[in-house]
Amino acid sequence: MNARTSENASFVAWRAQAQQAVETALSNWVLPGAPAGLGDAMRYAVLDGGKRLRPLLVLATSEAVSGDAAAAMRAACSVELIHAYSLVHDDMPCMDNDVLRRGKPTVHVKFGEAQALLAGDALQALAFELLVPGDASVPLGLSVALCRLLALSAGADGMAGGQAVDLASVGKSLDLPSLEAMHRRKTGALLQASVMMGAATGQVSSEATAQLQRFGASLGLAFQVVDDILDVTADSAKLGKTAGKDAACDKPTFVSLMGLESAQQYADRALAEAHDALSQTGLVHRDVLHSLADWVGRRDC
Amino acid sequence: MNARTSENASFVAWRAQAQQAVETALSNWVLPGAPAGLGDAMRYAVLDGGKRLRPLLVLATSEAVSGDAAAAMRAACSVELIHAYSLVHDDMPCMDNDVLRRGKPTVHVKFGEAQALLAGDALQALAFELLVPGDASVPLGLSVALCRLLALSAGADGMAGGQAVDLASVGKSLDLPSLEAMHRRKTGALLQASVMMGAATGQVSSEATAQLQRFGASLGLAFQVVDDILDVTADSAKLGKTAGKDAACDKPTFVSLMGLESAQQYADRALAEAHDALSQTGLVHRDVLHSLADWVGRRDC
Repeated sequence: MNARTSENASFVAWRAQAQQAVETALSNWVLPGAPAGLGDAMRYAVLDGGKRLRPLLVLATSEAVSGDAAAAMRAACSVELIHAYSLVHDDMPCMDNDVLRRGKPTVHVKFGEAQALLAGDALQALAFELLVPGDASVPLGLSVALCRLLALSAGADGMAGGQAVDLASVGKSLDLPSLEAMHRRKTGALLQASVMMGAATGQVSSEATAQLQRFGASLGLAFQVVDDILDVTADSAKLGKTAGKDAACDKPTFVSLMGLESAQQYADRALAEAHDALSQTGLVHRDVLHSLADWVGRRDC
Repeated sequence: MNARTSENASFVAWRAQAQQAVETALSNWVLPGAPAGLGDAMRYAVLDGGKRLRPLLVLATSEAVSGDAAAAMRAACSVELIHAYSLVHDDMPCMDNDVLRRGKPTVHVKFGEAQALLAGDALQALAFELLVPGDASVPLGLSVALCRLLALSAGADGMAGGQAVDLASVGKSLDLPSLEAMHRRKTGALLQASVMMGAATGQVSSEATAQLQRFGASLGLAFQVVDDILDVTADSAKLGKTAGKDAACDKPTFVSLMGLESAQQYADRALAEAHDALSQTGLVHRDVLHSLADWVGRRDC
């Protein structure tokens, strides 16, 4: 995922360092020891190749609010595990039936459907386990706040609910509010939760919290519109997943609803709104979050 | 599930009242409002017909330790949601491919595979959500302790890991230690967690905690051996699920390993050990737990 515009060198360095730290933490927490190959399937699903956008959002927000760094890394990995499990289940034959993800065979292709189902289930449990470490490393109130944000964003009113709407909307033409509502749940909820979990690791005023919520929501929308655009304009090799899938599956997208050019303008507006919300947080150290938003809104893969 | 021996009338009354309370709580927490039929599938998976053994274990243990009743009801429902989601996923075609559960068509038969997958996923998230209510109704330390017990028992080292071993053992003959190890994870972990979550709602000495752990482990084993016996001896109508499934799927069971008579003796020993552990807790109000163990070890459906 390279930005269309030139990137700030310090952000590129921050991102590389943070991605490496997330990769290491995930590798330490998703252990191969789980029985009967389950651990291998879980590691295959999680390690090696993701952009780690959600963890980066957690870490960058936590840094912006001078939050608890150890708790932030747990939160970062927990959202990534939820994201990873959702991809494993979403790729299964009864859902999107996809064979390629991050440039590799999907988990059910590699390990079989039953193991993929279980690996996804176990990853969701592990996501919550990370937030309740069983020692004093995360303050109790913070553990509870993080668990609640994660559970709400992953469940029926969040990601899982959005996927149900997505399933039900195949072959239908949704209007813009319905399409936005679906994506607010399906991808937006976990992206917004990433921001809010990062914020929870520090002390933030209620005004700044509200603006961070708006930042997360706008960023989530920008992410999805760009996703829809790239599904049309990019090729599978670059995306690391099957391109053209939305149209092939007859799914409503921002591009099918408004055309490519208007979708790009819509994405630009969502990105501008994210930047505006961020500037109104009044947070001093918001440069990395600003660059992360650019990275999302202007990516080309 | 009627006991083979006559039951204590006060236990029967306690059980009926507790089952009703759990049913009401589940109905209030698993709401139909989730989008695109997801809420309907979740309610179908959870409500109406379960024995509610795990919730009853939580509630009875909490009562035995004079625990926090409101927290115990949340914990009781959370373990039941984990159990319910595991059944939904377990019944799917890529796993056990079962069409009958609690006397009704399974969730994937009724709502389709994709919706079943999502309903299970959303139920797991909801299980954790129940433990972090977002208000002061559960003390923070208790919320965290309950989340940790639930996550560990549901995940790769618990239920999901046991299911992976179960999958891998089809067509194989396991020796007794391997069979016990599989079931300690697959069904035992969540049953034991039910006891420990109930215990966590109150104050318990470390000695009593250790005995409650042994009680939960023995009860879990008794439960599984009886399950294996009933799969051979009971009919589908009484079980509410397809009988004879283990043999048909060529799964190793306590009956296939040691024969019906020895399996029954083994179950009796596990039940006796559960009773022994319970008596050694030193808890005064342990009558209901004693009767619950009988109910598990001597059930006929």
